[in-house]
Amino acid sequence: MPTETAADRILSGLEAAPILDPHSHINPHAPTSETLADILGYHYYTELARSSGLAKEQIEPSAGPLDPKQLVANLVPTLERLDNTVQVSWFTELAQTFFGWEHECLTRDNWEALYDESAKQMAAPGYTDRVIKQTNLEKVFLTNDFDDPLDGFDTDFYVPCLRTDDLVFKLHTPEVRERLAKATGVEVGDADSLRAAIRKLFEHFTAKGARACAISLPPWFEPSAGYDSTIARHIAAGELGHVPGEDGELRPELYSFVFRTLAEHCREFGLPFDLMIGVNRNVYPDGVHQGRDLYDSRCSLKQYADLFNAFPEVTFPVSVLAPTLNQELVSYAWIFPNVVTSGHWWYSNIPAHIANDLRARLQAVPGDKQIGYYSDAYKLEFVLPKFAMYRRILAKELFAEYCEGRGWGEERAVELGLKVLRGNSERLFRG
Amino acid sequence: MPTETAADRILSGLEAAPILDPHSHINPHAPTSETLADILGYHYYTELARSSGLAKEQIEPSAGPLDPKQLVANLVPTLERLDNTVQVSWFTELAQTFFGWEHECLTRDNWEALYDESAKQMAAPGYTDRVIKQTNLEKVFLTNDFDDPLDGFDTDFYVPCLRTDDLVFKLHTPEVRERLAKATGVEVGDADSLRAAIRKLFEHFTAKGARACAISLPPWFEPSAGYDSTIARHIAAGELGHVPGEDGELRPELYSFVFRTLAEHCREFGLPFDLMIGVNRNVYPDGVHQGRDLYDSRCSLKQYADLFNAFPEVTFPVSVLAPTLNQELVSYAWIFPNVVTSGHWWYSNIPAHIANDLRARLQAVPGDKQIGYYSDAYKLEFVLPKFAMYRRILAKELFAEYCEGRGWGEERAVELGLKVLRGNSERLFRG
Amino acid sequence: MPTETAADRILSGLEAAPILDPHSHINPHAPTSETLADILGYHYYTELARSSGLAKEQIEPSAGPLDPKQLVANLVPTLERLDNTVQVSWFTELAQTFFGWEHECLTRDNWEALYDESAKQMAAPGYTDRVIKQTNLEKVFLTNDFDDPLDGFDTDFYVPCLRTDDLVFKLHTPEVRERLAKATGVEVGDADSLRAAIRKLFEHFTAKGARACAISLPPWFEPSAGYDSTIARHIAAGELGHVPGEDGELRPELYSFVFRTLAEHCREFGLPFDLMIGVNRNVYPDGVHQGRDLYDSRCSLKQYADLFNAFPEVTFPVSVLAPTLNQELVSYAWIFPNVVTSGHWWYSNIPAHIANDLRARLQAVPGDKQIGYYSDAYKLEFVLPKFAMYRRILAKELFAEYCEGRGWGEERAVELGLKVLRGNSERLFRG
Repeated sequence: MPTETAADRILSGLEAAPILDPHSHINPHAPTSETLADILGYHYYTELARSSGLAKEQIEPSAGPLDPKQLVANLVPTLERLDNTVQVSWFTELAQTFFGWEHECLTRDNWEALYDESAKQMAAPGYTDRVIKQTNLEKVFLTNDFDDPLDGFDTDFYVPCLRTDDLVFKLHTPEVRERLAKATGVEVGDADSLRAAIRKLFEHFTAKGARACAISLPPWFEPSAGYDSTIARHIAAGELGHVPGEDGELRPELYSFVFRTLAEHCREFGLPFDLMIGVNRNVYPDGVHQGRDLYDSRCSLKQYADLFNAFPEVTFPVSVLAPTLNQELVSYAWIFPNVVTSGHWWYSNIPAHIANDLRARLQAVPGDKQIGYYSDAYKLEFVLPKFAMYRRILAKELFAEYCEGRGWGEERAVELGLKVLRGNSERLFRG
Repeated sequence: MPTETAADRILSGLEAAPILDPHSHINPHAPTSETLADILGYHYYTELARSSGLAKEQIEPSAGPLDPKQLVANLVPTLERLDNTVQVSWFTELAQTFFGWEHECLTRDNWEALYDESAKQMAAPGYTDRVIKQTNLEKVFLTNDFDDPLDGFDTDFYVPCLRTDDLVFKLHTPEVRERLAKATGVEVGDADSLRAAIRKLFEHFTAKGARACAISLPPWFEPSAGYDSTIARHIAAGELGHVPGEDGELRPELYSFVFRTLAEHCREFGLPFDLMIGVNRNVYPDGVHQGRDLYDSRCSLKQYADLFNAFPEVTFPVSVLAPTLNQELVSYAWIFPNVVTSGHWWYSNIPAHIANDLRARLQAVPGDKQIGYYSDAYKLEFVLPKFAMYRRILAKELFAEYCEGRGWGEERAVELGLKVLRGNSERLFRG
Repeated sequence: MPTETAADRILSGLEAAPILDPHSHINPHAPTSETLADILGYHYYTELARSSGLAKEQIEPSAGPLDPKQLVANLVPTLERLDNTVQVSWFTELAQTFFGWEHECLTRDNWEALYDESAKQMAAPGYTDRVIKQTNLEKVFLTNDFDDPLDGFDTDFYVPCLRTDDLVFKLHTPEVRERLAKATGVEVGDADSLRAAIRKLFEHFTAKGARACAISLPPWFEPSAGYDSTIARHIAAGELGHVPGEDGELRPELYSFVFRTLAEHCREFGLPFDLMIGVNRNVYPDGVHQGRDLYDSRCSLKQYADLFNAFPEVTFPVSVLAPTLNQELVSYAWIFPNVVTSGHWWYSNIPAHIANDLRARLQAVPGDKQIGYYSDAYKLEFVLPKFAMYRRILAKELFAEYCEGRGWGEERAVELGLKVLRGNSERLFRG
């Protein structure tokens, strides 16, 4: 057996702490999977399979959803060829951990046995509790639609978070205004009614223990302070829903107005505002569900400087999609008291980028302003392998930078690691 | 002697496979060098010497080309000072391998002996065959002008590839239209005649075994779907050559039209379309031949999203010049089935960038969508040191990521490496 | 004791050479500190403390400057939490070296003893000489306002450098025109008087041994060759100070005109022109002194291509603020004879970025065109820990790239390192 190294001991120290996961898409009413299809149906697998040549009809037939087992049967021959990816390694790790799987590679020969065995285990009483226990998961934040009733689950474990993409970018659609009216009892037409409705949402969410407001933003977005007189006239006339625009992308001033109104309420209600910056939606329209979005690295945090200045009381945990933007994020968090680095989002969530990005953050961002990681998971089974990947990288970087580089003892390195891993989330999102 | 490590064994596994080089500028009628001047006259050396202060007159005198030996004599004193560069290390490796050279550094004292000895070896019968054998080279793709007759060489070893820069960006010049008319018998004026001419080119090239169409593209280029009515009128009136524009850079709609017409023919003829994205031509006009181009990192693959969507049947092996763009390339290849990562091009072709770029590709792009490397060489002697550099980096990354990181056996790592190194090229360019 | 490795021996070789520091903000009339407040008042600490939540009133009270000891007392509780940053590690290293401090971490409990002890040592005769000797500092370049009399200090050790930000970006303000008139005796109104005034400055500076002209530039700046007729009219009419513009950022043509006039004088007087590219001033107006500036990575060296072409006789040592721009810098220095890579500036000056940037430069930029490092220090005490950080990274990269990678002997690696570390500065700035 190999001897335990100092880096191993740092990793053990990080692994000993329960996980606080500050951003996910978990459905608290169905937090774990019923079959492998819930796991391999995750967009990370379906989109890679699609990218690797699997026909869309094999994944999302136009005739309607596939039988779960059939979906997995369709995916496996392609996934076999994707074993180089870190995404597939998440699957291997979770299957080994939760289902006692003993293979390294999912193949045409072994998938069905795993499918059947895992389905049995998933159906067994206490499965969700076992996943939570094996994951050592203390708390996980959700992503809730603004009109989510937030009923029927333990909001202390499944912490609500107000997701606001629809409000900002789709308020001009009748659908969203109707949903908003239904949720708040307020018909939104002008600035006052918008504020009244948003206030209702914040009251509802904070009463249910929400700990953050969140939004994903396209790379071209630049929230400006004002809006021009045409838009002002529309808003004043109660015609907020009728701000002209050729398509959904041409109403930036209205978007800014709603966005800043949300920031005002974050300030008033003491909620951090998670900004997930840089996603272009629907770049590949023929992709699978959630596998259509990409980014444009021609984007700068300079676009948010006015916002950061205007809301010094609001904490902005910032995630960036383009890894090139991480360098700006480090610098902005080094200067702005209200900018906090947050996780490694989506296309940045691979070890090559995490290691580089993390190293720069550790070296130059105040240690109490770094939210190390979140799972972004749709099913609880993914929290474990994703956090495990991150902790291995974190342990390695801590050892190299602080023990090897600066002569720190292991305990001091672990202490810093735990702050990044969960202490900062605990403090910043305590509400 | 140092013990052979697992990483060494992976490297040996990669080195054992014959090289398939999917992009070069080899002249099949003179594939190897006649003197060291053919080697050190490569723009990588002349431009570095120029950059390091050697006068242009010493390299490309206005009075006409230098005697080969004089050119080398002029270059050596500057090259001495460039031994830190990886470019010079290519030279050292090839001189040691092909000419039995025993020095490490080219100097004023030792260059002449090497010049004379290598010239003798180059003139010996079977020299080209020996280079091919020592390189273990199976096949090399060329870069052929659209009016290349493709006669007089073994197109199975020297695989033709239709280079289309002139067609897209210079069709408005009489010279290019005349060359096109001569090559195809079609006078191009309107859209139909353009299509007829391009079809002739594709017929000619595919009959001669061409396996790809290729083009290099400036960072500002964004191939749009349509063109406006003014251009349409010119094209309809058979005046395609008279689309107005202040200079060669101001006809983007015409460029787009020709470019998309080429993509249509790639679709019809089943040829991959190599896109080499990001070069600004003639940024340093006073530079040496081929040492005048640079890039602008304010560029995004978003500019090509419409193209990728419009031609799902065409495979686009994409190379990027700005290393910052590699991060987008990884993400686009992860989502778009028809986007394939391709090599490490030009300014990105140094170990510091290759290692970072390769690591991200291995972790996140389907293993069968990665064309690992091409030499871009003008003379066959360069295939060996360039591929050797790449294989060393690949072996190191494979070992760290898969053996050390995920517990894979060495054979499985080698298998993945060979797919990236040649298997994918074999499959994607099989025609 | 650990055995000395080859990398250690390379480091020793680099450490043995006296430091030549080609860019700093040292005040030659007060080069070292009087109390710890001069050290911890450095913007790297005050801005990180501010970013970490310390109120601005605790650092820069509106009522006027704090007593030095009180400032340190205010900063320490926050700095305690910043010990992960490399900036704080500079402090630890300098305190241990210059004051015999034996702690690792500045805390509420130990800061006062250090404050008192260091103040005593700073007040002792010969303190500055001791710092210079312990640093092994041979020469340090200054940053001088254009109207600095440059009197009363040893210009051979404290080498003057003409800083020109005010001239380029504030010549339209009466204050700067008055300062210029006072310094040169020339009232600037039109192009001729501007040239006359600038000539006087260059005469004054070079007479005092200045070795460079320098400027920091915003990311949007693109020095154009010409200026339009409106501006020409203003300049011709002697109203250079009245070029219209909504604010200081709207006079780019005037800026270009002054900037290029400076370049003309660099050419005539044989001074390198240090370009520090990419800073946006006052992005966080509520930040502490010098802690308000950031950058925008949407910037390209393409913006300077015309300049590099127009002034082939001027050496441009280029620093970039956005680490993403380093990749362009490597390529531009590889092509343009007059572009030299220069140091690791400000937000790029952290090991994570330095290591990546340095590796690419070593591999692809002529070894005699790399100015490795400068301290940018305001007090001499910082030269040692900053250069120490850089030399450790340089030694590691030299060992990995050249000894391990290419089989070089240690001496040859040290020789290259010394060229990058000081030889190139010596040659390029010899005047």
